[in-house]
Amino acid sequence: MADYIHDDYLLQGDAARRLYHEFAQSQPIFDFHCHLSPKEIYEDKSFPHITDVWLSGDHYKWRLMRACGVPEKFVTGDGDPYEKFLYWAGTVEKSVGNPLYAWTHLELKRYFGVSQLLNTASAPAIWEQCNRVLAQPGFSARGLILRSGVKALCTTDDPADDLRYHQLLREDESFPVRVLPAFRPENALHPETAAFLPWIDRMEAVTGRSIDTLAALESALLERAEFFKENGCLIADQSLQAPDFARGTREEAEAAFRRARAGEALSPDALNAYQSQLMRSLGKIYRKMGFVMQLHFGVLRNVNSRMYSIAGADAGFDSVGDGISAASVAALFDALDRTDELPKTVVYSLNGGDDDKLAAVLGCFQEGCFPQKMQLGTPWWFSDHRDGMEKMLKALANTGLLSGFIGMLTDSRSFLSYARHEYFRRVLCNLLGGWMERGEIPGDFALVGSMVKDICFGNAARYFGL
Amino acid sequence: MADYIHDDYLLQGDAARRLYHEFAQSQPIFDFHCHLSPKEIYEDKSFPHITDVWLSGDHYKWRLMRACGVPEKFVTGDGDPYEKFLYWAGTVEKSVGNPLYAWTHLELKRYFGVSQLLNTASAPAIWEQCNRVLAQPGFSARGLILRSGVKALCTTDDPADDLRYHQLLREDESFPVRVLPAFRPENALHPETAAFLPWIDRMEAVTGRSIDTLAALESALLERAEFFKENGCLIADQSLQAPDFARGTREEAEAAFRRARAGEALSPDALNAYQSQLMRSLGKIYRKMGFVMQLHFGVLRNVNSRMYSIAGADAGFDSVGDGISAASVAALFDALDRTDELPKTVVYSLNGGDDDKLAAVLGCFQEGCFPQKMQLGTPWWFSDHRDGMEKMLKALANTGLLSGFIGMLTDSRSFLSYARHEYFRRVLCNLLGGWMERGEIPGDFALVGSMVKDICFGNAARYFGL
Amino acid sequence: MADYIHDDYLLQGDAARRLYHEFAQSQPIFDFHCHLSPKEIYEDKSFPHITDVWLSGDHYKWRLMRACGVPEKFVTGDGDPYEKFLYWAGTVEKSVGNPLYAWTHLELKRYFGVSQLLNTASAPAIWEQCNRVLAQPGFSARGLILRSGVKALCTTDDPADDLRYHQLLREDESFPVRVLPAFRPENALHPETAAFLPWIDRMEAVTGRSIDTLAALESALLERAEFFKENGCLIADQSLQAPDFARGTREEAEAAFRRARAGEALSPDALNAYQSQLMRSLGKIYRKMGFVMQLHFGVLRNVNSRMYSIAGADAGFDSVGDGISAASVAALFDALDRTDELPKTVVYSLNGGDDDKLAAVLGCFQEGCFPQKMQLGTPWWFSDHRDGMEKMLKALANTGLLSGFIGMLTDSRSFLSYARHEYFRRVLCNLLGGWMERGEIPGDFALVGSMVKDICFGNAARYFGL
Repeated sequence: MADYIHDDYLLQGDAARRLYHEFAQSQPIFDFHCHLSPKEIYEDKSFPHITDVWLSGDHYKWRLMRACGVPEKFVTGDGDPYEKFLYWAGTVEKSVGNPLYAWTHLELKRYFGVSQLLNTASAPAIWEQCNRVLAQPGFSARGLILRSGVKALCTTDDPADDLRYHQLLREDESFPVRVLPAFRPENALHPETAAFLPWIDRMEAVTGRSIDTLAALESALLERAEFFKENGCLIADQSLQAPDFARGTREEAEAAFRRARAGEALSPDALNAYQSQLMRSLGKIYRKMGFVMQLHFGVLRNVNSRMYSIAGADAGFDSVGDGISAASVAALFDALDRTDELPKTVVYSLNGGDDDKLAAVLGCFQEGCFPQKMQLGTPWWFSDHRDGMEKMLKALANTGLLSGFIGMLTDSRSFLSYARHEYFRRVLCNLLGGWMERGEIPGDFALVGSMVKDICFGNAARYFGL
Repeated sequence: MADYIHDDYLLQGDAARRLYHEFAQSQPIFDFHCHLSPKEIYEDKSFPHITDVWLSGDHYKWRLMRACGVPEKFVTGDGDPYEKFLYWAGTVEKSVGNPLYAWTHLELKRYFGVSQLLNTASAPAIWEQCNRVLAQPGFSARGLILRSGVKALCTTDDPADDLRYHQLLREDESFPVRVLPAFRPENALHPETAAFLPWIDRMEAVTGRSIDTLAALESALLERAEFFKENGCLIADQSLQAPDFARGTREEAEAAFRRARAGEALSPDALNAYQSQLMRSLGKIYRKMGFVMQLHFGVLRNVNSRMYSIAGADAGFDSVGDGISAASVAALFDALDRTDELPKTVVYSLNGGDDDKLAAVLGCFQEGCFPQKMQLGTPWWFSDHRDGMEKMLKALANTGLLSGFIGMLTDSRSFLSYARHEYFRRVLCNLLGGWMERGEIPGDFALVGSMVKDICFGNAARYFGL
Repeated sequence: MADYIHDDYLLQGDAARRLYHEFAQSQPIFDFHCHLSPKEIYEDKSFPHITDVWLSGDHYKWRLMRACGVPEKFVTGDGDPYEKFLYWAGTVEKSVGNPLYAWTHLELKRYFGVSQLLNTASAPAIWEQCNRVLAQPGFSARGLILRSGVKALCTTDDPADDLRYHQLLREDESFPVRVLPAFRPENALHPETAAFLPWIDRMEAVTGRSIDTLAALESALLERAEFFKENGCLIADQSLQAPDFARGTREEAEAAFRRARAGEALSPDALNAYQSQLMRSLGKIYRKMGFVMQLHFGVLRNVNSRMYSIAGADAGFDSVGDGISAASVAALFDALDRTDELPKTVVYSLNGGDDDKLAAVLGCFQEGCFPQKMQLGTPWWFSDHRDGMEKMLKALANTGLLSGFIGMLTDSRSFLSYARHEYFRRVLCNLLGGWMERGEIPGDFALVGSMVKDICFGNAARYFGL
């Protein structure tokens, strides 16, 4: 039996293989949205064992382990690292067809030279092999980034953050990769969470202002955005379920802020008005700063109360939500565009049913001054797999310009997940190669190959002005 | 021209063929959700002609006949059985591409040895052939079940039912197939229908209790669930459009019950509160009994008033509805899980757009004590075809563990519809075989073949503790 | 490299090729829904250059140009026609994968004999070649219609229209193509737009009635429908976002009309009641007239206020909307069907997520008196591409009768867009041929070939009683 992961993995047909090997494979990576820790990069963290790098923060894996009946002690609990790894190996064996099955073996092959399938039987030898590799120089945080061909990456940072590690990284000439901060005012947008008031306090401390009104909050956010810009920030990010941006007045938003500031609960309408108004203000700030605005919609968070009390947030108890209304997204863009304050924007919905309508809404706000200003974002999280990618690539191709797509990002907390860029590039080349071979697009490698290169790296580099 | 239905029907490529013939084909059937009549099984009903077994209760076929312009007299009316069959043959000829075209020819081949295509020209000879076969011993209700390789099946029964035929069947040692009741409190959940009050009366009669409050209803349901359990019940079932389980208090539900008991109409909010609360109570009952809870969402029933007055319910005038909110389903599960009273659950939505989000919600409630406790159900009714199956199988694979799927069921009133298990198994093997041949999963027949066997039978047997 | 557009374009496998060449290719076209100008047809408009025929009214192309960063001056502005063409050529080069890439090259090949790919380099020569062809006799409006094999077409006309050009065309025996009006009471259904009151005035003028009540409006619409019928009309059309036809009383609708007539704004509920009641009345009119009722749902119009003020309506700033509720559509049909006043109906939703549920709702209202009375319409606008077509064809096949489908239409303002019928036929034959080759349907060319012919032309001709 041939190896599962080989040179032509996922590439059906000569055109796909040629596109990948000639055009995609050697492109550098600009991972413009991830959740890596700048501190770990600066300190060049090393990893004692594969469980540390693979299982310590990866809630994708935790979900599958729970679905396999693994006790929580060996998921997020204090179980022995080796036993955790064995449980993970047993889970992988049951996960044929899941993207984690593919990613796992891609990472094993690319970073650790392991060609066997991971399962209960092979686990002990693979544990040894991976740990041997991790003990080598060049397999620390920085080493893994470098060997993955990363030119630049954007972390995800709170507006109150002092960006100390980004500053230290910029001064450190020994590391050639640009590590840039991203502005993520998640706490500002979510007054319904317990994190809101402590965050307001931190913002007051870092800006030296009192934040008693929505306007004061907006001023503080602008000030911090300017600080982020000074520190190299190119991009902002927010995550929202599905607000109706067509509803809610400025007055309602201000009242909502005052109630939230006073520690009172908000009605759904008040929260909606607040989020709608604040997103308009943030959009204007981003346009002024030249930031790209990322909007993540359609996530339903922390749906399991019992496990939330045990494992906390980001532990694998989030879900795909019901999708966002086209009219809502259009209302936000229109409100900003009316005064020519709509920033470059990337929209992601976790609900794949939104792809076609989001692509269509985005197409209503493209404008002559800037090519492909409004972007449909790459599939992420529960949609980050071959089917999701093909669906999104087709939605974009059918409704807009696939050739202008800024492409893949990891959205990950793991230093090994750059393998997903390879996975994406193979899916992309396979799709385009198939179109070529079936005559759906011209069999012209210069034409299609340059699209591939642009989608892998060039478009993102130009879009963000890297 | 080769026969339409042949040994390798639907199987593209050697891997698909090997998976089907080596691993799937010989697996027994556990049809854990169907609508067969236990009385007809006990009495071993025989069929005078193919119209009786095919057209007497099959509203899928009736819809296609109406779409072909067949007068209602020959659909549900008192038309001559042979003429009805001729109309059906003419309809089949127009149905190329519909799953009924495939099922019809699969049933003709497997049960009646007919290889010709059914159409107006071939109909007279096929009528003769089928009726000749039906007159043989071994083509009665029990004979058809036995020759289909069924090990066990679950019917669908009202809580007020006395389960007499299930008891008789259990005592009848001549029939080796387990015929188990399923608990379906449909009438309890639908106080908006005319069937509600007469059903309450029946429940009062069978329990000897007065049912004047929601709490009394819940006690009566528990008592009947215990009776069902004594009679071998493993599973419950309910069908709901798209209630919002996040809304509605216990008090509102109790008030709604009193109004419904008094014969008053319920507002949509009152109905929602009632259904939400009752489902929580039912979930707790199921957990206590060890029943698997089936939830069927997204059906829009009886949309054609004129035909409802002529042909009644379940006559082909139901539709796919608008799908259920992820937040609603999550709220029901969370309410039950908080006190550790969430039973094993299978969720089906008739709206295929729900697959991804339901798979994701289910993944938030998997727990260590039980492998793959929460199941995405197989596509059914309007989605019960190759496209629907592939879509659902991919949704489950991408978001969870395909290897743990409990698989196919007929949901049917017909003794011939076990052919759909064969159809499903071919689709499954074709999907997995294609993945193997394209290198998307390893080309490892031991690994993938054991998944196939488990999905065909083993998973369901273990899940239900057969 | 072989030509991109060739005889077997989009046709994979022998069965697909045989279906297309033997059965589809020679079928005439009945384009039962388009936006051509009867005046331009009557006057046999000729075209000075390719920019006039391609770019003067095509908002699909405008959107892509804007996405490529083309300044508005060269999109809808007063830019030089040759420069506009060069910008379009540069846009095409970036549009690989978009349906416009396919249509563009199909039109270049079929009408202008151009086999090269359009791009910045080839644009000057192609400009010359196209203009040379356009200067020939036989490339005027009538010439293009004739050489496309069109037997009949239905334009889209306002009820207040005098249908003068339709009358002139009927009297003109030199033009053998039937050019029929279609009844589109768009203005009646949209009192929320500025066009409403001037339109009421025109209707008062043309009918000589005062229109002060909803009932008076309905009488005027009936009178105009009768006039349209006298002038050959077979079909009506309306476009609505997603009204809830289950809500809103006659009284609310009448009150809404009075408010709108008085120039007052309508609440969303009032607009909904008005549209619901008016659609019921229109449905009854259509049934009486024998018109086919077309319903276009799921469009979100004019979402970009800034550009609306510059470029107006139908300029490329519309979007896919959120889809329509199955319960709403069913309520409209049921209200009409109860009194046996439901006309033949074709439903189109711009949101492809509606396909399955619409197909299922339509199946509840098929009736014995008329084969395939209720039709799922062909994908249009943002869904008018291979993926959208395959999705819709599968939805219809799985849920109803693909063999009875009335097929493709252009919905276009362009005399070159008949090439989309060829595109559709290739997609159809490729789908069916693939099913044949994979044994999913019988390999019976007589059976499947006759389906192909019917879908290309015969079904529509019979359905409309051409």
